[in-house]
Amino acid sequence: MIRVPVQIRYNDFDLRGHVNNALYLTYFELARMAAWERIAGPVDAGFILAEARVTYLSPAMLGDALAVEVVTREVRTKAWVWSYRIVAEGDGRVVAEGETTQVMFDYEERRTIAVPAGLRVRLLEI
Amino acid sequence: MIRVPVQIRYNDFDLRGHVNNALYLTYFELARMAAWERIAGPVDAGFILAEARVTYLSPAMLGDALAVEVVTREVRTKAWVWSYRIVAEGDGRVVAEGETTQVMFDYEERRTIAVPAGLRVRLLEI
Amino acid sequence: MIRVPVQIRYNDFDLRGHVNNALYLTYFELARMAAWERIAGPVDAGFILAEARVTYLSPAMLGDALAVEVVTREVRTKAWVWSYRIVAEGDGRVVAEGETTQVMFDYEERRTIAVPAGLRVRLLEI
Amino acid sequence: MIRVPVQIRYNDFDLRGHVNNALYLTYFELARMAAWERIAGPVDAGFILAEARVTYLSPAMLGDALAVEVVTREVRTKAWVWSYRIVAEGDGRVVAEGETTQVMFDYEERRTIAVPAGLRVRLLEI
Repeated sequence: MIRVPVQIRYNDFDLRGHVNNALYLTYFELARMAAWERIAGPVDAGFILAEARVTYLSPAMLGDALAVEVVTREVRTKAWVWSYRIVAEGDGRVVAEGETTQVMFDYEERRTIAVPAGLRVRLLEI
Repeated sequence: MIRVPVQIRYNDFDLRGHVNNALYLTYFELARMAAWERIAGPVDAGFILAEARVTYLSPAMLGDALAVEVVTREVRTKAWVWSYRIVAEGDGRVVAEGETTQVMFDYEERRTIAVPAGLRVRLLEI
Repeated sequence: MIRVPVQIRYNDFDLRGHVNNALYLTYFELARMAAWERIAGPVDAGFILAEARVTYLSPAMLGDALAVEVVTREVRTKAWVWSYRIVAEGDGRVVAEGETTQVMFDYEERRTIAVPAGLRVRLLEI
Repeated sequence: MIRVPVQIRYNDFDLRGHVNNALYLTYFELARMAAWERIAGPVDAGFILAEARVTYLSPAMLGDALAVEVVTREVRTKAWVWSYRIVAEGDGRVVAEGETTQVMFDYEERRTIAVPAGLRVRLLEI
């Protein structure tokens, strides 16, 4: 599991004082970038996003300190699933949870490829 | 069905020249705002977002003219589901599809409420 | 002068119900993209932004329909200045005005270059 | 002077791999929020932004760790000026500098007011 504190921006909030719904995917992306940086060192390939899901559990408000957590849920032949939680650090409540599915992609060849064995091991350590 | 053209912004694109994954929820929101404006005239209540899902089908690139469509998929007692498609108007390909679940919410009383009968009718016309 | 209607997004608004200050530069960019598209047809070069200024005159609120206008203020040897106004179409009030300075840049050679004669003429038509 | 590290988001980057020009105002805002939080404790008033300026000095690229600094440049009767620098922490280069002018504003009375004496002192400590 990787945990990343979120630096909330003033314009993340909407008119009601809640973090805008689309920003949760941006917060997930902060964790995803940190996860990818940790595991992908020598792997010469990338991934594409196939699917994303967010469940909104409790609104994040001005003053909340948020952190986003990511954990690998499943690794398939060509794809893997990351699960996320966004947590308010003050009271520990879970603001949102969700997941994204990534497909291994060779940007040179423009095609999906199998998850390399070494990457699979490192993915399972997240 | 409501169809809204998307005014793409230069910073919607990421390093690879694709529309960033989180922006799709923002595009869905454009259609949701248009749908809500059409149906909610005299209804003194709002809604909260309970869940959002995006399936990424084909990257949107610089030069694509996009439109987002929304249709009501299902109306339950307190909630309803909107389905979305983002379409590239040049070649008609579907860039993404997804859905969001809205829960009827009384912001004064801070509680979920039943979808009013009049709103239910208008929701089913979307 | 080029005038572009702005498609305002729900998360452009901040907690006070005003369009967030940074978004004005994004709205200027919408006009800048439209201006560049009109004039730059066969010119194989780009520009870099050297400076931007915004003067906030009246808050833009939910319900305002905005348009952004751009006009060429000055063309120098290697640079030019575009001036902008953001106007609320309902009551005609000017919400913000500002300007940006662009420097002609050859991305291949990684250096600033003179504004080509043909581009200079088209810039002055904006 | 207050210095705030910037948590860069993947969609802050544009097609050329540079931080989008409008985001610099968002980074300035991170420093402004931190400055206001430090000084405004018991002051029951707010401010409005009257003007913002950014000078782009060197593009910020993927991999740059950025910090934004703010210092009070001038305090007038009803307004003050904050100056900003955005610095790449790796090589120390200044990516951008700029300033914003804030006007003291009573949101209850909907009018500009004088900068209170206590706030003036604390502003000058930034």
